[in-house]
Amino acid sequence: MKRVFGIDVGGMSVKFAIVDETGTIIERWSVPTNLADAGSHIPDEMISSINEKLASSPEPIVAIGVGIPGPVNGEDAVRAVNLGWGNMPLGNILREGTGLPVALINDANAAAVGEVWMGGEGSVTGNSIFVTLGTGVGGGIIIDGKIVGGDHGCGGEIGHIPVVAPSERVCGCGNVNCLECYASATGIIKNANELAEKAGEERRFTKGEEIFEEVKQGGATATAARDMTVDYLARALAGIMATVDPSEVIVGGGLSGAGDLLMVPLAERLERYVFPPMRGCYTLRRAALGNEAGILGAAYQALQLV
Amino acid sequence: MKRVFGIDVGGMSVKFAIVDETGTIIERWSVPTNLADAGSHIPDEMISSINEKLASSPEPIVAIGVGIPGPVNGEDAVRAVNLGWGNMPLGNILREGTGLPVALINDANAAAVGEVWMGGEGSVTGNSIFVTLGTGVGGGIIIDGKIVGGDHGCGGEIGHIPVVAPSERVCGCGNVNCLECYASATGIIKNANELAEKAGEERRFTKGEEIFEEVKQGGATATAARDMTVDYLARALAGIMATVDPSEVIVGGGLSGAGDLLMVPLAERLERYVFPPMRGCYTLRRAALGNEAGILGAAYQALQLV
Repeated sequence: MKRVFGIDVGGMSVKFAIVDETGTIIERWSVPTNLADAGSHIPDEMISSINEKLASSPEPIVAIGVGIPGPVNGEDAVRAVNLGWGNMPLGNILREGTGLPVALINDANAAAVGEVWMGGEGSVTGNSIFVTLGTGVGGGIIIDGKIVGGDHGCGGEIGHIPVVAPSERVCGCGNVNCLECYASATGIIKNANELAEKAGEERRFTKGEEIFEEVKQGGATATAARDMTVDYLARALAGIMATVDPSEVIVGGGLSGAGDLLMVPLAERLERYVFPPMRGCYTLRRAALGNEAGILGAAYQALQLV
Repeated sequence: MKRVFGIDVGGMSVKFAIVDETGTIIERWSVPTNLADAGSHIPDEMISSINEKLASSPEPIVAIGVGIPGPVNGEDAVRAVNLGWGNMPLGNILREGTGLPVALINDANAAAVGEVWMGGEGSVTGNSIFVTLGTGVGGGIIIDGKIVGGDHGCGGEIGHIPVVAPSERVCGCGNVNCLECYASATGIIKNANELAEKAGEERRFTKGEEIFEEVKQGGATATAARDMTVDYLARALAGIMATVDPSEVIVGGGLSGAGDLLMVPLAERLERYVFPPMRGCYTLRRAALGNEAGILGAAYQALQLV
């Protein structure tokens, strides 16, 4: 059975795994991300770690898949700000350093592929939407079983879908009122504090968990903040659904940890906003894999090479 | 050189063409659409017309592509309301009746493929968005050179992206405030009449052309109506662009006949709303082909079979 490396390059650590065709993780390890000198040592340290494992592995490992925190253009990581990288020809460097074929993929896209693959039924087919609600909002779009990387490495950047809102929130990208200003873990806090201020309340929220704790108790401000997040998210997802007509919508990231408090109203709103012929024709579910999704998605991309 | 049939089934006529691999239309004809008996005679009449041409053609014609005014699921037209069709296994019927392989495609999707193919550089590669602004708003999404048909035949139904608006307009689909309620030929008239009423004006608009005539003269109400259409359209397109990251955005349909009066402000708004890394990385253009787009797109799909 074929084995590949699935790698997730993050700002804190580079996570490695050896993964087989069934999606089983045979072995995993990680090394701290070396951010010195604009991240320029990262590729060589990856090569060392890979070659060490190749030398000691009883079974051959035949390809490498790497998730990158930034846009990917073919064999190049284009701009991974958290690593200090400008254009980094990582695919070529890793291939020359290890002799293995290399697939690069954006990390949110890798998580999408991983979730559809191993969070689901063990195959990647048809059309799926994955959205991750963390500090920002990321995502991945899968069409006919393939991730949409985009013509400029920006496929699935659904956190930057513009929304219409009464307030003006400046997004990290520089635009005003992107989806992630309202539907991320930080967005829902902004919702809650804006509503608290309007209601003349003194207290301010600092964590998503506090908000969902209050939602559970029936708190009006927290519930309204949750509903605001759900409404923007449902409209955006309904828009994406009208565009690509998926069978599956998966919600991951920290905010999805709220479980039914998020997913039940989201399901209700999504059914309201979705193009009527699609009503009842798709599944909406929480991501199942957590941090492993990225490694598995990267491994899946590697398996497509061999 | 390979030749195929490109067919566009409309509510008034069925348009046929023989098209070669270079996209040249060798011959074209049409027959009135027979809507009697819930459109049940249409497939047989198509077969007669195809077989007649096959018998008389000096060159072999090797496949059939058909654009359908409704969703397509594999070999079936699922629900073509204007033809009276429920589920119609058209692919199978035409294949058995002619002996040729058959590709079915939704008509707006066919127009998208045709525009990218022959309205552009003669090839279908990469990612493109096509939007048609007619009575409604339709479209087609092309990813890696392939049309996104969708898991339920609803790919590219971008007229039904939900928008946030101060008024409530019920869409033909049953939802409230779909993009096409604001950005279609009928939507812009609603914009203008709503604004005229608010401004205490007596007159009402009945045609898009009147509105653009007044925009040319600097009329405030008409300009505001145009800007409303442009704003909703630009936000929706920017959202789709954040999702699929195309190189090309094409605008067709009756409203695109307004030319620069529509396209110049649209280009400006789109640059404002698009995810910043994509700024300047895509082309926005008017559709070039008019009614031929659908026939050519259907022919292109047929050519992929042989």
